[in-house]
Amino acid sequence: MSAKDIGVAPPKGFRDFLPRETELRDRVLADILRVYRSYGFERVDTPAIEDLRRLQKSEGGENLGLMFRILKRGDKLDLSKPGLNPDDLVDLGLRYDLTVPLSRYYANNKESLPAIFKAVQVGPVWRAERPQAGRFRQFVQCDIDIIGGAAPAVEAELMTATQEALAAVGIQNLVLRLNDRRILLAMVANAGISEDRAAKALVLLDKLDKLGLDGVKGAFLADGFGEEATQKLITFAAKVQAMPAAERLEGVRSGLASLVPTLVFDELAQILASVKPGLCQGNTIEFDPFLVRGMGYYTGAVFEISSPEFGSSVAGGGRYDKLIGNLSGVEAPACGFSIGFERITSILEERERSGGSVAPKVAIFYDAGPGTLEAVMVAAQGLRKQGTITSIFESPRNMKNSLERLKLSGYTGFARFKSGEALSIKSLE
Amino acid sequence: MSAKDIGVAPPKGFRDFLPRETELRDRVLADILRVYRSYGFERVDTPAIEDLRRLQKSEGGENLGLMFRILKRGDKLDLSKPGLNPDDLVDLGLRYDLTVPLSRYYANNKESLPAIFKAVQVGPVWRAERPQAGRFRQFVQCDIDIIGGAAPAVEAELMTATQEALAAVGIQNLVLRLNDRRILLAMVANAGISEDRAAKALVLLDKLDKLGLDGVKGAFLADGFGEEATQKLITFAAKVQAMPAAERLEGVRSGLASLVPTLVFDELAQILASVKPGLCQGNTIEFDPFLVRGMGYYTGAVFEISSPEFGSSVAGGGRYDKLIGNLSGVEAPACGFSIGFERITSILEERERSGGSVAPKVAIFYDAGPGTLEAVMVAAQGLRKQGTITSIFESPRNMKNSLERLKLSGYTGFARFKSGEALSIKSLE
Repeated sequence: MSAKDIGVAPPKGFRDFLPRETELRDRVLADILRVYRSYGFERVDTPAIEDLRRLQKSEGGENLGLMFRILKRGDKLDLSKPGLNPDDLVDLGLRYDLTVPLSRYYANNKESLPAIFKAVQVGPVWRAERPQAGRFRQFVQCDIDIIGGAAPAVEAELMTATQEALAAVGIQNLVLRLNDRRILLAMVANAGISEDRAAKALVLLDKLDKLGLDGVKGAFLADGFGEEATQKLITFAAKVQAMPAAERLEGVRSGLASLVPTLVFDELAQILASVKPGLCQGNTIEFDPFLVRGMGYYTGAVFEISSPEFGSSVAGGGRYDKLIGNLSGVEAPACGFSIGFERITSILEERERSGGSVAPKVAIFYDAGPGTLEAVMVAAQGLRKQGTITSIFESPRNMKNSLERLKLSGYTGFARFKSGEALSIKSLE
Repeated sequence: MSAKDIGVAPPKGFRDFLPRETELRDRVLADILRVYRSYGFERVDTPAIEDLRRLQKSEGGENLGLMFRILKRGDKLDLSKPGLNPDDLVDLGLRYDLTVPLSRYYANNKESLPAIFKAVQVGPVWRAERPQAGRFRQFVQCDIDIIGGAAPAVEAELMTATQEALAAVGIQNLVLRLNDRRILLAMVANAGISEDRAAKALVLLDKLDKLGLDGVKGAFLADGFGEEATQKLITFAAKVQAMPAAERLEGVRSGLASLVPTLVFDELAQILASVKPGLCQGNTIEFDPFLVRGMGYYTGAVFEISSPEFGSSVAGGGRYDKLIGNLSGVEAPACGFSIGFERITSILEERERSGGSVAPKVAIFYDAGPGTLEAVMVAAQGLRKQGTITSIFESPRNMKNSLERLKLSGYTGFARFKSGEALSIKSLE
């Protein structure tokens, strides 16, 4: 078999990034990390590979079926056993998210970490998704988490820092929304829906944005929820939606007074009040009693940042006070926020294609000859010291073609080096 | 099985990095990339996973036995077949270096890349080494490569840029050494050693630094090289070593005149002359006719940067004009240089432990109460704007313990927030 039989594309579902794309991704990451660092978040770096048993017993839902599993090595791999099953063959797996590794990391290192640990993680995760447009088998996640803190300062810092990080990369005019999982569960219980159907009810309620009140009502009935319960829930929702935004928190507080501790609403009010003064220009924050956030492990506040301009959520998170204990055996309250890194880089790439400024990048061509290389290297160092990205090349046979391709790679200018003459840089625009 | 049965350590041979370690690694990478970018090197990002057949047919030597292989998924995995062998079970693998992915990347994307492509790659690679002190199963490689260029400007830029990158992270007083694989092969042929034993002869010659002339002579004889050939090689080496450094290039040129094209020496002289004026303070460059560099695929210049202070090589590379073609089916001359990233970060960590300056990082404690969280968030934003890393925490029960642990995490100061009073920051030193 030769190289040609395998082809030169990456494996199915994986991507090569061109230099221009990688530069953008690097820049976005650097800007986000700069902001998070200023808030005292500390970089956590864990291996790409975890013990497969740890991954399998995590609360990963359908992601568990999408894991890349690693074949055992050496004597540990025994193919002679009758009735082999795949689990006999593998012992490690690639992480499918950053939360399972973080909980292990925290439990493993907590003696060396502050009592309230502010973590920022950025890195690839792997899922064997069916390849399709816009869905990849390796993609970057960008999470911040505060472990060990139960005070509302935690939610306030996560939200403030994340909207500032998004502003730093140029994602503005955002809507921050805040809710609490306990309010959602009370709303559902209040309508007479039993606890074992609550999770399903939240999945349907999450579609309120898209389907509207009538659509959601239909969905509940179609799913076998009783007419009375459905009607009660929809009536409550309609009443809340009709309130002015600023009055909703108090409206829901009194509507669910017997079911939700008043402290829950006090803390939401504190978070709203303390995020407001730090809002980036163009951003707003609101209490949204119908914000659900999908993950089953949330126990308290849930929140999201969305961009009306791009019609999508750009970050989401919430409080998960039980998960670290379940995953690692070390109990600790925790709360996290995750930026949709692939989503925002695709927004920014789109924007960059439609214009944007470029740093100076110059090619210097020289003709081989005694002492020339030495002299051209000195000239190049001079340009670099002035902040110009500078490359030297021996003059090519086909100069026109070379210049075309350099232009495609973001070169803005070129010069022909002549011994004893000053460099004259011509534009490639 | 509970979380406790698995433990909380990473899998054997893998590492968690503490925040302080990750910050250092990030800073080193950023400094190196900044220098390489100024030379026009462009970031290449490829997936961690490659087609297993591509990895298996690469020139990876013993690394091929150390690959992490990924179990097939879904219907592709058939355990019912009689006489199963491991190759039937796997289709993908984790990359064990960055060169195999680069050659695939170049072949896959070359229409979008400049004719002479300057690539910088930084990322983890995986090898299932037997776990032992200082050897890890995931580690970072940091490579620059110039593909498509045959002129000596290529070697000159790789060497100049790399020593500048090392200076940027504080690794100084370095020795740059340069040789050519064709000189080594001629030296061996000149002694009458047959071509099929040349590779083995180079392995032994590589020990000249450590064993000295007599030691190497013994090693040749012990390995079955004839007395006459061994004596001829050692005599030649002794003669060259006795020459003043500045005369060695011409000495070897005349000694091997009939065996090495004079162009090889002309180009080495050009590289030496053009790297010299750009040498960072404290660095020197020399022609070293006994520098070998291990990889079998080198075809021309080979070079290395070593630190006498730390008694080790910190970067190595060379020209490999056939490898890209062998790996990808697309012929292209190429030359690369690799910084020993794990080596230099461990040097720098050692240095940091013995002192070094710290950026200001402040914890603000507040007592819960109406309006307090809001006010402390505003105060924290003020400090962040001045460049101070700032975290807010609800006042802990055990303040003394909290302060101890914050100090361990690099906090330099703290303040207790009091409404209406200016923040008074106390030092944690």
